[in-house]
Amino acid sequence: MTNKFTLKQLAGDYSLEYRGDAGTCIQRIATLGSAGPDALSFLANPIYRKDLEITSAGIVILAAEDLGNYQGAVLISSNPYLDYARIANRVNEKPQSACIHPHASVDPDAAIGAGVSIAAGVVIEKGVTVGDNCRIDANVTLCHGVSLGERVIVHSGAVIGADGFGLAFDQDHWIKVPQLGSVVIGDDCEIGANTTIDRGAIEDTVLENDVRLDNLVQVAHNVKIGAHTAMAGCSGVAGSTSIGKYCMIAGASGVGGHIEIADHVTITAMSMVTQSIKTAGYYGSGVEAQPHAEWRRNLARLRRLDKTFKKLLLRKREK
Amino acid sequence: MTNKFTLKQLAGDYSLEYRGDAGTCIQRIATLGSAGPDALSFLANPIYRKDLEITSAGIVILAAEDLGNYQGAVLISSNPYLDYARIANRVNEKPQSACIHPHASVDPDAAIGAGVSIAAGVVIEKGVTVGDNCRIDANVTLCHGVSLGERVIVHSGAVIGADGFGLAFDQDHWIKVPQLGSVVIGDDCEIGANTTIDRGAIEDTVLENDVRLDNLVQVAHNVKIGAHTAMAGCSGVAGSTSIGKYCMIAGASGVGGHIEIADHVTITAMSMVTQSIKTAGYYGSGVEAQPHAEWRRNLARLRRLDKTFKKLLLRKREK
Amino acid sequence: MTNKFTLKQLAGDYSLEYRGDAGTCIQRIATLGSAGPDALSFLANPIYRKDLEITSAGIVILAAEDLGNYQGAVLISSNPYLDYARIANRVNEKPQSACIHPHASVDPDAAIGAGVSIAAGVVIEKGVTVGDNCRIDANVTLCHGVSLGERVIVHSGAVIGADGFGLAFDQDHWIKVPQLGSVVIGDDCEIGANTTIDRGAIEDTVLENDVRLDNLVQVAHNVKIGAHTAMAGCSGVAGSTSIGKYCMIAGASGVGGHIEIADHVTITAMSMVTQSIKTAGYYGSGVEAQPHAEWRRNLARLRRLDKTFKKLLLRKREK
Repeated sequence: MTNKFTLKQLAGDYSLEYRGDAGTCIQRIATLGSAGPDALSFLANPIYRKDLEITSAGIVILAAEDLGNYQGAVLISSNPYLDYARIANRVNEKPQSACIHPHASVDPDAAIGAGVSIAAGVVIEKGVTVGDNCRIDANVTLCHGVSLGERVIVHSGAVIGADGFGLAFDQDHWIKVPQLGSVVIGDDCEIGANTTIDRGAIEDTVLENDVRLDNLVQVAHNVKIGAHTAMAGCSGVAGSTSIGKYCMIAGASGVGGHIEIADHVTITAMSMVTQSIKTAGYYGSGVEAQPHAEWRRNLARLRRLDKTFKKLLLRKREK
Repeated sequence: MTNKFTLKQLAGDYSLEYRGDAGTCIQRIATLGSAGPDALSFLANPIYRKDLEITSAGIVILAAEDLGNYQGAVLISSNPYLDYARIANRVNEKPQSACIHPHASVDPDAAIGAGVSIAAGVVIEKGVTVGDNCRIDANVTLCHGVSLGERVIVHSGAVIGADGFGLAFDQDHWIKVPQLGSVVIGDDCEIGANTTIDRGAIEDTVLENDVRLDNLVQVAHNVKIGAHTAMAGCSGVAGSTSIGKYCMIAGASGVGGHIEIADHVTITAMSMVTQSIKTAGYYGSGVEAQPHAEWRRNLARLRRLDKTFKKLLLRKREK
Repeated sequence: MTNKFTLKQLAGDYSLEYRGDAGTCIQRIATLGSAGPDALSFLANPIYRKDLEITSAGIVILAAEDLGNYQGAVLISSNPYLDYARIANRVNEKPQSACIHPHASVDPDAAIGAGVSIAAGVVIEKGVTVGDNCRIDANVTLCHGVSLGERVIVHSGAVIGADGFGLAFDQDHWIKVPQLGSVVIGDDCEIGANTTIDRGAIEDTVLENDVRLDNLVQVAHNVKIGAHTAMAGCSGVAGSTSIGKYCMIAGASGVGGHIEIADHVTITAMSMVTQSIKTAGYYGSGVEAQPHAEWRRNLARLRRLDKTFKKLLLRKREK
């Protein structure tokens, strides 16, 4: 299932400088620590620099500044992780089998593109459109009318197009607000395992091209996520919020409803955004753990911070 | 699939004052921005007031104070969102098809009420009771013995009745505590996509009538949730906690175990509740994001807040 | 389905002291509040001490110091919860039916051990290994190549082995980094409902023996979790992090990527860990809710904490 490549061939195909025996041949991928002579490896994170000294990898992709005294065959890259990704995809290339598993339930009224793979347990409801070369993994649900672009990957257990959380309060009980919109997902998006994307209340929930969602992410009704934005695991966005292009939302962060986030905004982990952000940059509010006893004392101070400061200021005035 | 209504008919049926041509006829729902002359729209959130100037909607539901110079046909409501919900449900009314999809697995020992819709991929285990007119969406799991009232909606991927997280530590390893209770869900509840509700350890986990859970909500064993309470996406409740009636738990909030929350309590987003709350009202601890560099400086101060204050107080005493 | 036991028999089998009629016979489990004379109950949490006065339980397991004036039949235990777990498992013992539900999809190339139970809607892909006596609940997905030890319980909706969230940025778009590793899970692990465990990027994601994950937990690629560690609901671990043995990660906590957590570390609820922890103990950063108005004032102070302190220090210097 894997393919063989020589050092020279890879250097040529990816326009990379190389050192070492041009005929060195690899046919698999491995970490520096575990690679044998038939494996390609890479060094991108300085944490692993020490592994270079002991690696048996056939070829290593690395930056010129990490070369040091290493004598093995190398591909020199200005972005080793990116070049690794490109080459690893090729080494492991296998044609996607375009098939609908007999244990999938695909409504006859759904439009399924060419080259689409649909795994067991998938449910695709009426009026769904799945673009060419999508991959729909096991036990995914695509609710009625949802639309996916081309080359979208939906991981197992994800639910796209469930009703948004729309409720109107009627004196002493809730009335369900009908959720009449759908979900429109662009090309090259990836939706993580058990992630949920709700259908719009009236208009659609929209993910532009190349949006990448990790596992257990919640996207509420009428959210719009700009192209190339990535959201890490356990993050969520409340209803009607618009997130720009090229944003990064780190793990377990929450973005409130009815706000707008500009392009190129990064939200750090476990942060809460409740107001619109108009300027690109980094924003956050995650609190880092301390030894518990220390944190309890700080937290006790935080919980009466306003009173303490008021007292302090009063004393100042009194002096 | 939609139905037609005139302005006069809607005004009469919902006891609303109207202005404009009594014969104006709508047959669909749309936002102010996208509505055509055959659509009903509404204005509830002041953010959208500007859209009233440009709308082509056949009929708009709005509050008297938002009428301004608007010349189109209107229904005047003291609660436009609620009246919108009522009318939109009627415009889009379609009889639920009472059917069990051939790709659902329903144990012959389960009791399924009249008018119930069960989608593909649903698994209903032994001893489950599903009340009349429930809607069980694709890939839902109802574990053995779980009981649902009438008109309950369970969205795709939800799991009701998995074992609670019960473990006893035995010197150097865990022993599983058997989870012998079940889950009892009242009438008119709604359970979001990929939400999980665990069965009780000995007695049952209970949701009273009209409880509304959004997506990816976690309800642990032996939790009791009072009638009409709503929990937004990614929130969770730990074991044996009792939440009152008419509570609102905002997104990504966590409620600790073995506590009691009174009726009419609102928990704001991303807050953590670890002690019982005896008085109705708003409670919270969510921290709002700032520009990251600014937050880092504040966080550094927070992490030594107790030491700093101790030093400050010492100095005061020394003076 | 349950079995009968006398007081004398239980005392003997579990080496517990007893008081009361040796022939007292129980055949079911109940709480103190609801137990009848044929039920075994227990008192482990002092919250329930008052229920001892009114219980009709046939036998109660409790600590010597909780005995008081109670006159009923008792088993005296130094760890009532643990002894309850042991006995309750036996009272409710039923042989697991080793069967593959006809609505499960098991790849012919998967290796399924003896005594394994596989429920409806389960999808087991190519190359998966499931050890003896595992229990795979409804709608679980085990992706290609995943390996489970013996006696592993996977609750409904869990997804094991979906692709990790690996992306390399290429000028103006994302490139997917192939996820070539797998997931290896030891013996006696328990994986909660709708929990997700990603496959490794190159090497495997690993859970050692007796790891216990609650519902809606996210475990990213290449994470290693040491034996006997438990993670509560809605918690998550980012990529390549190593968590020690006997750790406890409380609900909704997040552990960052590429760090190491020592053995016997407890992370309290809703905390964020971003740096390695080298010493056993308790760590946390969760903020407890207050009345909202009070919290808003404290939060406002927190958001300018650094500026305020700088001003205070300046004034001091000026004096």
